[in-house]
Amino acid sequence: MPIKIDLRYISRSLKLDSMENFVYNVKTKIIFGRNTEDKIADEIKLIVPNGKVLLHYGGGSIKKNGLYDKVIAQLRLANIEFVELGGVQPNPRLALAQEGIKICQEQNIDFILAVGGGSVIDSAKCIAVGAVNEENFWQKYYVERQEVTKALPIGTVLTIPAAGSESSGGSVITDEVNERKIYANGDVLRPEFSILNPELSYTLPKYQIACGAADILAHIMERYFSNSVGVDFTDQLCEAAMKSLIKNAPEAIVNPLNYDVRAEVMLAGLYAHSDCLGVGRVGDWATHDIEHELSAIYDIAHGEGLAIMFPAWMKFVGKNNPHKVVQFAENVLDITLGTEEEKIAAAITTLKNWFKLLGLKNNLREFSEISQEKFQLMAKRCTPNGTLGNYVELTTTDIFEIFSIAW
Amino acid sequence: MPIKIDLRYISRSLKLDSMENFVYNVKTKIIFGRNTEDKIADEIKLIVPNGKVLLHYGGGSIKKNGLYDKVIAQLRLANIEFVELGGVQPNPRLALAQEGIKICQEQNIDFILAVGGGSVIDSAKCIAVGAVNEENFWQKYYVERQEVTKALPIGTVLTIPAAGSESSGGSVITDEVNERKIYANGDVLRPEFSILNPELSYTLPKYQIACGAADILAHIMERYFSNSVGVDFTDQLCEAAMKSLIKNAPEAIVNPLNYDVRAEVMLAGLYAHSDCLGVGRVGDWATHDIEHELSAIYDIAHGEGLAIMFPAWMKFVGKNNPHKVVQFAENVLDITLGTEEEKIAAAITTLKNWFKLLGLKNNLREFSEISQEKFQLMAKRCTPNGTLGNYVELTTTDIFEIFSIAW
Repeated sequence: MPIKIDLRYISRSLKLDSMENFVYNVKTKIIFGRNTEDKIADEIKLIVPNGKVLLHYGGGSIKKNGLYDKVIAQLRLANIEFVELGGVQPNPRLALAQEGIKICQEQNIDFILAVGGGSVIDSAKCIAVGAVNEENFWQKYYVERQEVTKALPIGTVLTIPAAGSESSGGSVITDEVNERKIYANGDVLRPEFSILNPELSYTLPKYQIACGAADILAHIMERYFSNSVGVDFTDQLCEAAMKSLIKNAPEAIVNPLNYDVRAEVMLAGLYAHSDCLGVGRVGDWATHDIEHELSAIYDIAHGEGLAIMFPAWMKFVGKNNPHKVVQFAENVLDITLGTEEEKIAAAITTLKNWFKLLGLKNNLREFSEISQEKFQLMAKRCTPNGTLGNYVELTTTDIFEIFSIAW
Repeated sequence: MPIKIDLRYISRSLKLDSMENFVYNVKTKIIFGRNTEDKIADEIKLIVPNGKVLLHYGGGSIKKNGLYDKVIAQLRLANIEFVELGGVQPNPRLALAQEGIKICQEQNIDFILAVGGGSVIDSAKCIAVGAVNEENFWQKYYVERQEVTKALPIGTVLTIPAAGSESSGGSVITDEVNERKIYANGDVLRPEFSILNPELSYTLPKYQIACGAADILAHIMERYFSNSVGVDFTDQLCEAAMKSLIKNAPEAIVNPLNYDVRAEVMLAGLYAHSDCLGVGRVGDWATHDIEHELSAIYDIAHGEGLAIMFPAWMKFVGKNNPHKVVQFAENVLDITLGTEEEKIAAAITTLKNWFKLLGLKNNLREFSEISQEKFQLMAKRCTPNGTLGNYVELTTTDIFEIFSIAW
């Protein structure tokens, strides 16, 4: 397979020698399967035997499907003292996290239990950081991205397979006042335990399953699209994970009560972001950062934003550094005929069709609230350091072009 | 693909409904790459800031290749007090572990640093258990296989990609007096950290690389050969790992100084036994148990024993429960032509040829010290509970037949 590389576009972080050194440090105890939510109280007591818990959750869904009652009853039966803070929205807000921090500090909370999807868990992590760090934690860990080294311990009960926050060390929060969606990182932010019962995802609306699947696929692709060499093994793990997800996610939408399919999707979501597929590689998180600008300003669902931006990004990088896009076409989508250019085009079409099959939009113009006016602003905000990304190093102009492709 | 199942041979543990519930709890911090052995002292101090360390290792190889000197110099420079215990042999012995336990108890050791391959790490784990448990720890945790819940913390510097003990919760020890090779298990036995520098494997003899590769492949196959359903995702991860290893291990033997290839093999060894490939599945560890009887009595290398026993096991189960063997032939070895029987036969031939390519024996009769006389005894000792294995539940007679196939 001939590889054409336009050197202008290759990242300075490109190393042509071999697999990157890495540290893999995932402490999260994963408890996966039917009825595993019955273990919440036991697991909390293992970590904080006499602790006081902040129970953190989102809107009404866990109240409607009975999970809320189940959790409350279990905590009471186990004599675990707790305070509640619900109301987390998609694209979770700093203001609510600050409310949680105040509760933790005033009421001497020792542990945060997040029941919900990635937004709830990310919000819980923000509270966990703010509760035990100085007042300017937002500036230090989110804005400046210093590594978080101290936080309250948290546990999760996952209801949406998507963000991978159930084992990741990341927390993405929206500062609604300044329309910024930014993240903090640190191994200390990985939950102590996460309970994953695929049945808890049965009642999710199809749209949320679809957005979740887009997020999961993006997490794998962002590790996969790499210039690192000597990483065939993780390449193949990523390809296996993408194939499995591409097959199972549409099934999960058609048959919401199929345990097997839900379990496969939930497991893929976990693996996609726990980093076991991404060790030793320099990934490329440009698309996530580009999408964050979109959802910060327009408050669209993160997964749907990714579903639109990823094919656009792929079209752009396919011109400048095609080798991994061709490999994706061949090994993940079984597109084996045609020239490199044709394979890339076919892969992008296939990917867009898959997102459409999931019920997601394909173009930014399909959103009535989005206009082309802010493309320049968003492109600029993506590149505070001049460029963004590693597989292809994007300039502000390049990102503007990607937004235009996505229009 | 038509699947013929002989129900007499299917395990009672077979569940036809869906992915198994599981707990995944791997705390080990993996530090992977060039020069990572420079971090030993820092990592120890993170766990036991003022601790006293038992430095545990094997024969002369780490003294010859300079690793020993490097470790000693680093511990001294960091003012870490330590006691040494070398001399671990392949198929590590209980007697040496008991010596280590005595040292730990008499000298108030807080932490064990194992520098070597799986034998050294397994020996360190045995010491870690014995040092903080009652005198009858051997009976309780190894003979009766009660879960280990208390042990000294350990760290490892891996020199041989093979056993996966660098992140597993298992310890396999030989009681040389009673010719028994048995194991203990517990999450608490997983190392606190493991340092994996592929360069440290450069000086290994080819035979050890070959035996290691056989052990790694067996660890993946023992997870792969499963009757669990709804596990396509982990099936595909296992297949990716096997393909990668099958490609890279012979390369590692031909080009001992190729970092990329050594890194891929070392990473495969880690993944093969950390269980990320095996979650939610009922595996089949019959071949490992069968081989343990061989190496307990004849003291042959574990990896070479597996290289002989696995194809023999596969031939036997291929007759009684072919579906996964056919899938292995098709998806891992790309054998797509022929009937199911022909595919199975071709897979076994290919597998044996691969082991031969690595320089390993194919039949038990090639060992001058092994005779057919003890087949009955070994088969009996494999089946203290009547049968062995899950993919196919083997009787004593079946295991005798497998030994005969391997002759």
